[in-house]
Amino acid sequence: MAHHEISVATIQRLPLYLDYLKSVEKDIEFISATTIAFSLGLGEVQVRKDLASVSSSGKPKIGYNIHELISQLEDALGYHHVNNAIIVGAGKLGCALLGYEGFCRSGLEILAAFDSDQTKAGQYESGKPIYTVDALPDFCRDKEVRIGIITVPGEHAQKVCDLLVEAGILAIWNFAPVRLDIPKNIIVKNENMASSLAVLSTSLAKKLREA
Amino acid sequence: MAHHEISVATIQRLPLYLDYLKSVEKDIEFISATTIAFSLGLGEVQVRKDLASVSSSGKPKIGYNIHELISQLEDALGYHHVNNAIIVGAGKLGCALLGYEGFCRSGLEILAAFDSDQTKAGQYESGKPIYTVDALPDFCRDKEVRIGIITVPGEHAQKVCDLLVEAGILAIWNFAPVRLDIPKNIIVKNENMASSLAVLSTSLAKKLREA
Repeated sequence: MAHHEISVATIQRLPLYLDYLKSVEKDIEFISATTIAFSLGLGEVQVRKDLASVSSSGKPKIGYNIHELISQLEDALGYHHVNNAIIVGAGKLGCALLGYEGFCRSGLEILAAFDSDQTKAGQYESGKPIYTVDALPDFCRDKEVRIGIITVPGEHAQKVCDLLVEAGILAIWNFAPVRLDIPKNIIVKNENMASSLAVLSTSLAKKLREA
Repeated sequence: MAHHEISVATIQRLPLYLDYLKSVEKDIEFISATTIAFSLGLGEVQVRKDLASVSSSGKPKIGYNIHELISQLEDALGYHHVNNAIIVGAGKLGCALLGYEGFCRSGLEILAAFDSDQTKAGQYESGKPIYTVDALPDFCRDKEVRIGIITVPGEHAQKVCDLLVEAGILAIWNFAPVRLDIPKNIIVKNENMASSLAVLSTSLAKKLREA
């Protein structure tokens, strides 16, 4: 399948299908798009389109072989390739991500966290070591780290970003509430909590105006 | 302005404009869409369209009065109305959100966290009290809490969601990696870290295939 043509909206729903299919995998062999749509509260047309982007093996009246579909979803999501990652910023958010249950099956392997606070160095969080930032460049090159996760305060994020790029990282997942100035060949995903909140609070404001 | 017609993509960018404008507010009185676009690394056409959705006061050759534009952005984002919120799940992610710096100016007032772990009750995190879940319904009604933030493990999320709806909450911000079964009149924003990661890792997989 031509995975690179899948839309971002579809990609974001693929982990939902995967989680659901894994939860019922033990009990059934075939599953229909209708059942999946109903169970996840999604539209049937959307589910059919989403699944068609990763699999062409669904059969009329029978549905999808569930093990095959799981494997195809994992393949589309790149879960069969393990991506080594590190976190910079071992504060509350960094430590929350170190222990986040949802990453376990996703092919993201967070190897360690780095922090400028010397007193955190040598500690472990959710079983992962914390090092000082000085150790970052050598660590990234030795372990072929591809993903850098930034969870430092906004004012330090650009400096950390530059350090990660310098250390050969290919993709950055940025949780600091700032825009990063970053080379065009590096993949970046900004996770701005204030932007997410904005969607919620404007919907709420509209609802309250209409009430 | 007809705020309810603004697209979700635009709404998600509004906090970026606001942060930037506040950072330069002291130094200048007028600012052009061109300057804003350049500083944030966004397209000029996009910035003009986004700002047009919240303000009609930009003038050719002069630009926007910066204080006026800040106020219009805050108004569109509902920041002038304070929304009382609570967090359920005082684990690492819940505590990270309690202390998240980006919410301070956003009109989201997180009053307290609730947890099923009795030993956490009575403690404070980032200055906010933690209570047991039993105290949630009365607290929500007394304080007119409108937003519930769910940061419990996936298997407990639906139970917590039901409790919040029962307690009169209007909007739910869900960080648990599951779909919630929720009445249609309640606003819900799912924050699935695995979905965000999927966008990053599929881009990376594509990049590596092409390399």
